[in-house]
Amino acid sequence: MSQVFHHHLEKFIKIDEIEFTSILSFFKTIKVKKKEDLVLEGQICKTNFFVLNGCLRKYFINNKGIEQTTEFAIENWWITDNISYEQETPTAFYIQAVENSEILVIDKYSQEKLLKDFPKMERYFRFIYQRAYAASQIRMKYLYDFTKEEFYDHLCKNHPEFVQRVPQYLIASFLGFTPEYLSEIRNKKRS
Amino acid sequence: MSQVFHHHLEKFIKIDEIEFTSILSFFKTIKVKKKEDLVLEGQICKTNFFVLNGCLRKYFINNKGIEQTTEFAIENWWITDNISYEQETPTAFYIQAVENSEILVIDKYSQEKLLKDFPKMERYFRFIYQRAYAASQIRMKYLYDFTKEEFYDHLCKNHPEFVQRVPQYLIASFLGFTPEYLSEIRNKKRS
Repeated sequence: MSQVFHHHLEKFIKIDEIEFTSILSFFKTIKVKKKEDLVLEGQICKTNFFVLNGCLRKYFINNKGIEQTTEFAIENWWITDNISYEQETPTAFYIQAVENSEILVIDKYSQEKLLKDFPKMERYFRFIYQRAYAASQIRMKYLYDFTKEEFYDHLCKNHPEFVQRVPQYLIASFLGFTPEYLSEIRNKKRS
Repeated sequence: MSQVFHHHLEKFIKIDEIEFTSILSFFKTIKVKKKEDLVLEGQICKTNFFVLNGCLRKYFINNKGIEQTTEFAIENWWITDNISYEQETPTAFYIQAVENSEILVIDKYSQEKLLKDFPKMERYFRFIYQRAYAASQIRMKYLYDFTKEEFYDHLCKNHPEFVQRVPQYLIASFLGFTPEYLSEIRNKKRS
């Protein structure tokens, strides 16, 4: 399963098998069950997660006491609360498994040592954060520009595999709908 | 003025004067007047901007034909449309000077060459994108969690120098208010 990570790294930098074995030694591999929590609100988010297979999500409890999902991570994506991770402050988020998942886990100090020992990983993480930042800029535009219905249409059109894969109540939580309202929209689209 | 950039780089990596002179040769320095456009919607955003002094903003024209500001960049911040810059696709944004500003400008190919010639700049840009991504995660939470009034209160409390510095109609454009509505809220806060 760790070969998923090697293959992913190879998209950005050249890593031979010996290097990869050393790089992998900085990580732990864990398996989590669907709905298992990896991070709870108020904790310091001490680790960064890379999804080998499965799906994780990040959410917070909003003012109305409702779970607001802000991010999903499927295969080959990283997820953490970056502010909490970097500044070692309590997180406002939860991170939870959406599916049974296999995850690479690294803590901040191991990640720093990894970057020191393998400077080419600076290039890799530069690409990763650059891509994540670009995606968040577009997401921000959608949040300002789209109605919730338009955002749902956009998801269905551009990421149909995602809409199929993730339970509908979590799609609703991502869009800021109630599950009932999402159901209504879906019925409207069908008719 | 370029020493602002050297000082900024030194926060992340060690750069001596000779290296800095070489690094600087990858950039152009330009001066822009208040309200001057650097990027227009529909163009390919070919350059990345670093603010030496002054202030830039990024905005798009929303469905209602109104300017929606999504980002400001003051001294020591980078700004571009990262998707357009990286994928060489037409941008949906405008980038405009909020104040008379002095800017370092680099195009994508020069930035790639810079990273190749000075691998330590990978580390620098890794920090920059990591920081920008973390900031955008928090911003996303605010967009979901705060009412517009709460977002304004948060800005006033946590970034008073910013609220003082930027014209009120642009603060309104950032928050998604009409200038009249912002004026109303400000009067309420005063009374």
